[in-house]
Amino acid sequence: MNIVDIIDAKRRGQTHSQEEIAFLVHGMQQGTVRDYQVAAWLMAVCLQGLNLDETTWLTEAFVRSGDQLDLSGVGGVTVDKHSTGGVGDKTTLVLAPLLAAAGVKVAKLSGRGLGFTGGTIDKLEAITGFETALPKAQFLKQVQEIGVAIGRQTGNLAPADGTMYALRDVTATVDSIPLIAASVVSKKIAAGASVIVLDIKCGRGAFMKDLTQARQLAETCQAVGQRLGKRLVTVISSMEQPLGYAVGHSVELMEVIRTLRGEGPADLTELCQALGSIALLEAGLAKTPQDAVQQLTACVESGRALATFKAMVVAQGGDPECLEDFSLLPQPARISMIPSPVTGTVQSIDALMIARAAQAVGAGRRTKEDPIDLGVGVVLHKKVGDTVQQGETLVELYSDAAHATEAMDLLRDAFCFTEGPVTPPPLILLEPTHAAP
Amino acid sequence: MNIVDIIDAKRRGQTHSQEEIAFLVHGMQQGTVRDYQVAAWLMAVCLQGLNLDETTWLTEAFVRSGDQLDLSGVGGVTVDKHSTGGVGDKTTLVLAPLLAAAGVKVAKLSGRGLGFTGGTIDKLEAITGFETALPKAQFLKQVQEIGVAIGRQTGNLAPADGTMYALRDVTATVDSIPLIAASVVSKKIAAGASVIVLDIKCGRGAFMKDLTQARQLAETCQAVGQRLGKRLVTVISSMEQPLGYAVGHSVELMEVIRTLRGEGPADLTELCQALGSIALLEAGLAKTPQDAVQQLTACVESGRALATFKAMVVAQGGDPECLEDFSLLPQPARISMIPSPVTGTVQSIDALMIARAAQAVGAGRRTKEDPIDLGVGVVLHKKVGDTVQQGETLVELYSDAAHATEAMDLLRDAFCFTEGPVTPPPLILLEPTHAAP
Repeated sequence: MNIVDIIDAKRRGQTHSQEEIAFLVHGMQQGTVRDYQVAAWLMAVCLQGLNLDETTWLTEAFVRSGDQLDLSGVGGVTVDKHSTGGVGDKTTLVLAPLLAAAGVKVAKLSGRGLGFTGGTIDKLEAITGFETALPKAQFLKQVQEIGVAIGRQTGNLAPADGTMYALRDVTATVDSIPLIAASVVSKKIAAGASVIVLDIKCGRGAFMKDLTQARQLAETCQAVGQRLGKRLVTVISSMEQPLGYAVGHSVELMEVIRTLRGEGPADLTELCQALGSIALLEAGLAKTPQDAVQQLTACVESGRALATFKAMVVAQGGDPECLEDFSLLPQPARISMIPSPVTGTVQSIDALMIARAAQAVGAGRRTKEDPIDLGVGVVLHKKVGDTVQQGETLVELYSDAAHATEAMDLLRDAFCFTEGPVTPPPLILLEPTHAAP
Repeated sequence: MNIVDIIDAKRRGQTHSQEEIAFLVHGMQQGTVRDYQVAAWLMAVCLQGLNLDETTWLTEAFVRSGDQLDLSGVGGVTVDKHSTGGVGDKTTLVLAPLLAAAGVKVAKLSGRGLGFTGGTIDKLEAITGFETALPKAQFLKQVQEIGVAIGRQTGNLAPADGTMYALRDVTATVDSIPLIAASVVSKKIAAGASVIVLDIKCGRGAFMKDLTQARQLAETCQAVGQRLGKRLVTVISSMEQPLGYAVGHSVELMEVIRTLRGEGPADLTELCQALGSIALLEAGLAKTPQDAVQQLTACVESGRALATFKAMVVAQGGDPECLEDFSLLPQPARISMIPSPVTGTVQSIDALMIARAAQAVGAGRRTKEDPIDLGVGVVLHKKVGDTVQQGETLVELYSDAAHATEAMDLLRDAFCFTEGPVTPPPLILLEPTHAAP
């Protein structure tokens, strides 16, 4: 087998065999297939595609390139929820303790964010002392004992996906549905949970800009999961405006704690209930969606969800005082109010511009090595459909004041107004689609 | 300017600006654009194309990446002839001294072959003592004094083309018409001749498999040459069966010497006259094609063509005795006759299989470092249209006997026969097309 022939076949739109894909992935990891050859193949894939067989084989090759986490010892049904990435998406931080409180086991491995804002791990690190690099044994013991742990992906899970992703990032080959599907599904399979809930974001603040693309990604992930014997459910949710009101680290963490207390934004609460219901149904802990929502609501109202979050913070060495006293979280040097230029109704909020504003004040990384400022960010006061008076605060910018001009311009431009009433867009664009193995 | 955006634009079928192409080529040479990024861009170009502006800018960027040879000091009109590569193509070795004998200056820089057989430089090195690595001053002085020199391309001519070609070779991105055109035309412009004659090979033994592709390449090269102010003529010639009878190094050199004596194969003689006539017309040394052919014929019949070849051999340190005594050239250990399996007419000879047979016995390189055996090769006894008796010799294999079985099987399979008469295919598929600047 020859790598140049394999690249040439994809260039000409031919279909690979399982052996060819395994040869490519294995060769990439061994260094016998060079990075420029992988790059040429990736571009051919972006333009010629991979069919479902090829995508499944690629996923399998990624999984086999490293270890698989064995969660059989933690007891009960293990659930993993993954989102394809959106602006203000703090769902994992709400859902993980909420599901654990409802009796499911959540062993969550997360990466650092590389984008407009940091990832789940970065947000947790806003809590003083919170340790995300957990040794495997401690991680598993914590899941067994309190039902939830959120750790940094440090081990050797699907390392070939990591290698290939690093190349995609610098060769304009990120947005390809089969490549995204193989990347997402392989990491989730390697992470070992028995139920996978995939929240596919769709809209201007997401990779998938339209519903057609998002559906294709959902269908591809489901089909690959099914072929590889995994219980995988997909939901497509809107990412036109930010999720919730907060975009940043400290500010998102505050919103998470409020949501676990039952005082969160409507959209974040709705999404957590929707994804959580699926997980409970798939785990066999609820019989109907109504039953599942009732259980989740009870977990919040009884305080068990927040208590579980607190138990996780304590177990991972964090200071639990910050749950009561937000002043213990990293703070910005300055909070600037941006007033509405008109009286009217908010017609749209461009999630991407909000994200760029957050990045401009230091909430996001441009390279893996960049430091991020955990205290800065954006807090919306109004969302789509809200009425606003001229001069009323639209949005607050939490910053260290250094780069505030660019961010404030972006925030102003992100809002569009109208005179008449506006119905907020639906949050769930496509209800859960199950693919039992 | 950002390389990922440039790659992304080509992925989406957009058109580059001149600045973007210069940025890419310059960055590649500086190392700020990495080879995997160039590879991804090359694949995007193969699938999305480059328009004429982009191809011209790429050619220009290649030329500007190094030095340009200044031939103004050699006097007279300088001509450079280039072929896109074929099996048994020894035209340069005949044409260079022939044109010099007719009064044109030929300063020919050639690369080593990487393929089924070696290149012009390798073939000349079959002559004991022949030096191809000539210092620039000596090279130019020889052209001035005896009208011709053939040297190895050692200097810094279009180095970015060399860098990019090395990547294309290992990423399945060789056969793209704009990339081939930019590569060929840039090298010829850097080599400094005032008239460029391009022989585009077409058929199963060539890169261009059909006439449509070959025409596209011819038109692209002409248009790029014209935009860059070069006098460039293209001819398309057939490469279905090998050119002449010999494929190898010593064996091709013998055929060259016979052709310079007027005793060469009809097809090789015809092609040399066709390409030579164009050169004389473009150089202003002949008024009509008939006049040009008469001059060339006179050069051969008078012995001046062979004498010029001999003068070049002597000037470059080679042993001129081998022109009279072929036993002084490298010899094979063994010559095997392959008899015809039938009585009939040769319908076709697969040039690619003949080339693979020559490579199998050691006449070609697989990597740049491979040694080649100058004594081995293939000598046809029959060509398309020839009648043959069962048992009569079809072809001879010159080998060192080690790998002869594979080569003999290839040679047998290369011939197809029929019962009726066969008209040999035309050699010149498209008459010269001029593009004066």
